[in-house]
Amino acid sequence: MTAYEEARRRFDAKTKPRGSLGRLEDLGARIAGIRGFVPERLEAVIVVAAGDHGVAAEGVSAYPQEVTAQMVANFVAGGAAVSVLAREAGARLVVIDAGIASPIEVRPDEHELVRAVRVGAGTANMTVGPAMTDEQAALARAAGAALADELAGVDVVALGEMGIGNTTSAAALTAALLGVDPVLVCGPGTGLDAEGVERKVATVRRALEVNAGRDPLAALGGFEIAFLAGLALRAAERRLVVLVDGFITAAAVLAASRVDYAVVDSLVAAHRSPEPGHAAILEALDLDPLLDLGLRLGEGSGAALALPLLHASIAILREMATFEDAGVTDAGR
Amino acid sequence: MTAYEEARRRFDAKTKPRGSLGRLEDLGARIAGIRGFVPERLEAVIVVAAGDHGVAAEGVSAYPQEVTAQMVANFVAGGAAVSVLAREAGARLVVIDAGIASPIEVRPDEHELVRAVRVGAGTANMTVGPAMTDEQAALARAAGAALADELAGVDVVALGEMGIGNTTSAAALTAALLGVDPVLVCGPGTGLDAEGVERKVATVRRALEVNAGRDPLAALGGFEIAFLAGLALRAAERRLVVLVDGFITAAAVLAASRVDYAVVDSLVAAHRSPEPGHAAILEALDLDPLLDLGLRLGEGSGAALALPLLHASIAILREMATFEDAGVTDAGR
Repeated sequence: MTAYEEARRRFDAKTKPRGSLGRLEDLGARIAGIRGFVPERLEAVIVVAAGDHGVAAEGVSAYPQEVTAQMVANFVAGGAAVSVLAREAGARLVVIDAGIASPIEVRPDEHELVRAVRVGAGTANMTVGPAMTDEQAALARAAGAALADELAGVDVVALGEMGIGNTTSAAALTAALLGVDPVLVCGPGTGLDAEGVERKVATVRRALEVNAGRDPLAALGGFEIAFLAGLALRAAERRLVVLVDGFITAAAVLAASRVDYAVVDSLVAAHRSPEPGHAAILEALDLDPLLDLGLRLGEGSGAALALPLLHASIAILREMATFEDAGVTDAGR
Repeated sequence: MTAYEEARRRFDAKTKPRGSLGRLEDLGARIAGIRGFVPERLEAVIVVAAGDHGVAAEGVSAYPQEVTAQMVANFVAGGAAVSVLAREAGARLVVIDAGIASPIEVRPDEHELVRAVRVGAGTANMTVGPAMTDEQAALARAAGAALADELAGVDVVALGEMGIGNTTSAAALTAALLGVDPVLVCGPGTGLDAEGVERKVATVRRALEVNAGRDPLAALGGFEIAFLAGLALRAAERRLVVLVDGFITAAAVLAASRVDYAVVDSLVAAHRSPEPGHAAILEALDLDPLLDLGLRLGEGSGAALALPLLHASIAILREMATFEDAGVTDAGR
């Protein structure tokens, strides 16, 4: 019997009508299936990878590029949404500078929290050429894989990201990988108006034309996206649960799925964001997210909010009484 | 400025695009509005009221009546789903014997956890007369109100229930209060097949005919439902957040809303269950639930699963840095 089947049987023996915990049972069985056993208690790490994007010069974000570095400093200082939500969820936070425009200063006591991977000082502008060289993309992916190898005693790796302009990069990557028109995968991101979204669509269109024939992840992605793709691939090989946050992390695992489709079996989708490109990827990878709360922040915030559901599914498997234990009449089937 | 408005302003000042935490922001502002301030940390109690139903004799449940008492013992022993999920959510659990068929034995060390209200040894069969006398219904409501008065230092009261046959009672109550046909509010409950659902519809139809002109809560409700209605009404008066679980607790607050519609302003709907009657009540009370996970267990299990979202919304308000604190450029509107 596989760990998945065993978890299903364990849920069925618990003092409740069969299947009455709905998707919580699916989730617990999926986690058991991915890990190969039912963990005692889930150890979770939220990895927030940050990178800057040359395409930000096209005016595709409501925020200036300097905000990427400012937010990395905010993650490290513990004041960002994902900092708060990681603490709430009892998850470790790891911040990766995968290549922001200028590095932030890190105090010695913060070295546990933030790591400089720095494939470059931001990607090139994908509307005039590839965002990354193939070597840069490979380097970022390898760094992500190396982090996955380092994570000891971890059951769940939650993916998070930060990078001004990265919904445009994710939209281009999604359009290229799914073969859909940019208009179907471009949304307001963190706050564009209708005119801004039109500019984003035109920008993505130019990027796709300029980079036709190139590797989509390198040409249209970002350092943080390639890092997360590498992290997801290796984490899946190591049978860790990969918890996907919003649109950008979904684009990263979509790119990863083109390297090895088996990665999809290790994914859990935390939430559904209002970004149209996110819905397109969820459908393409056949992922049904746990939450639908209109979250459009990124950072791994939605993943952090979903973590208590993962914990709950395992607590039910571990701690809940069976009909036999509790002497409850099992008349249901 | 009201506490609701102040919470909205606080969310807007945080280092994130405005509104980008979606419904988590609505939730935090609603909690602040109900409480009149932003709590330091939410103290939550899950109240699971149990009662037996005379209508169980009509064969409307997949489980025999003895399961109500067995499950109350399971709650007290800590082995039920809500026991596990309350621990996970850091919430206190209070179990109320509002009138199960035969009382369970409670050890002295368990008296903190379980309370005997016992309005009767189960309600009468509502297909042959009223389930409760008006006096019994008033007694159950008063006991619920008394519990609300006792809860000190609590911010959130989550409603839970147990009672074999109580989806039939809730369906009758909902049909009467919303004036809809029983077929629209009868579902499989904890596991009826299509034939069982038909029997349930016919049972509800008979109960409505027999009790035409009587007070719906007394005639069609249950001891646990009337208790929860009284609890919700007084909790709302005391400006506590009332967290509604599934169909039966929704029927209780629907009944409460006919006593004082202001109770609705204090409600937060934890989840959407597959029971058709639940959707009808959520729509009638204009409640948009936080989770949609196919849960159909009751006990307060869905409320327990939603609690981390309530905690997270307050943690964001309390702990997240503002643009000013963190020196992040606030270019977004």
